[in-house]
Amino acid sequence: MDAYPQLYDIVASRYSCRSYTPAPVSREMVLAVLDTARLAPSACNKQPWLFIVVDTPELREKVIATYGRDWVKDVQTFIIACGIHPEAWHRADGKDHTDIDVAIAVEHICLAATSLGLGTCWICNFDAPALSSALNLPDDTEPIAIIPIGYPNPDSKVPAKNRKEIDEIVKWGKF
Amino acid sequence: MDAYPQLYDIVASRYSCRSYTPAPVSREMVLAVLDTARLAPSACNKQPWLFIVVDTPELREKVIATYGRDWVKDVQTFIIACGIHPEAWHRADGKDHTDIDVAIAVEHICLAATSLGLGTCWICNFDAPALSSALNLPDDTEPIAIIPIGYPNPDSKVPAKNRKEIDEIVKWGKF
Repeated sequence: MDAYPQLYDIVASRYSCRSYTPAPVSREMVLAVLDTARLAPSACNKQPWLFIVVDTPELREKVIATYGRDWVKDVQTFIIACGIHPEAWHRADGKDHTDIDVAIAVEHICLAATSLGLGTCWICNFDAPALSSALNLPDDTEPIAIIPIGYPNPDSKVPAKNRKEIDEIVKWGKF
Repeated sequence: MDAYPQLYDIVASRYSCRSYTPAPVSREMVLAVLDTARLAPSACNKQPWLFIVVDTPELREKVIATYGRDWVKDVQTFIIACGIHPEAWHRADGKDHTDIDVAIAVEHICLAATSLGLGTCWICNFDAPALSSALNLPDDTEPIAIIPIGYPNPDSKVPAKNRKEIDEIVKWGKF
């Protein structure tokens, strides 16, 4: 298999989409995207994750209130990615792998959505206790990211990707 | 773009590869893979990551010793994914996003390697202080994953993917 050009194109095309049309995404498409999260690797295959799909008006309002930015007001569907700490692998030194595992799965979501022409955005700057409360989450379950998923507004500009150069982030051999 | 079948195939084909041929991976290919990590999203675009490539005999030995399993002895190239905590975004409530950001970038590495026919494996059960010492890492830089990258041994069996069913990990609406 040499699918690198396709993968690279998906990675390069993914961006933080902050403007959507009001068209809802079908639950079938949401499930297609979530199935790639299901297949994600996790430490010791613990799969310590739960994805809460919010696509009803009342709950959408509550989720939006925990973030409070104008641009999310037209979003019809959110995926709330949660980590379940006691289900996750912890290294002998105590390192908790919940964040790592959930992040892997969420990025599968973002790449799969991109591959379907859908926009997403990693939202992490929410009021976590308020979001836990809105979703009535169990105490051991942490909301880690809010992912809006929808059809990008064709009139909005795709932001430029500003990234460090490869030489700044790669080191050949030790310090 | 509808590249979902290609993306799904890459996600479904990625596995924890624990048997490699002794053929080295070219630095050009390692860079092609790392370029997809470079493009990864991170909280507030902080890019708090560093990828240390270990492909020389002396340093390989030292890295292998921090994990200590037999199956890594033939691995010619490791990427050590590190997080730089003071460079990462921290939420107002103190939540540190280093692990999340590095995990996203590392998964890009694993998917890009898969797309090129290369094997990888997320290794997290290493002796972290020993690895930091072997690489002479600065105090603020944490080794988060060791990723072997190489050509899968064609005689080794690809493990089955045992995953929870979609209904176990997806919830429509709140608790």
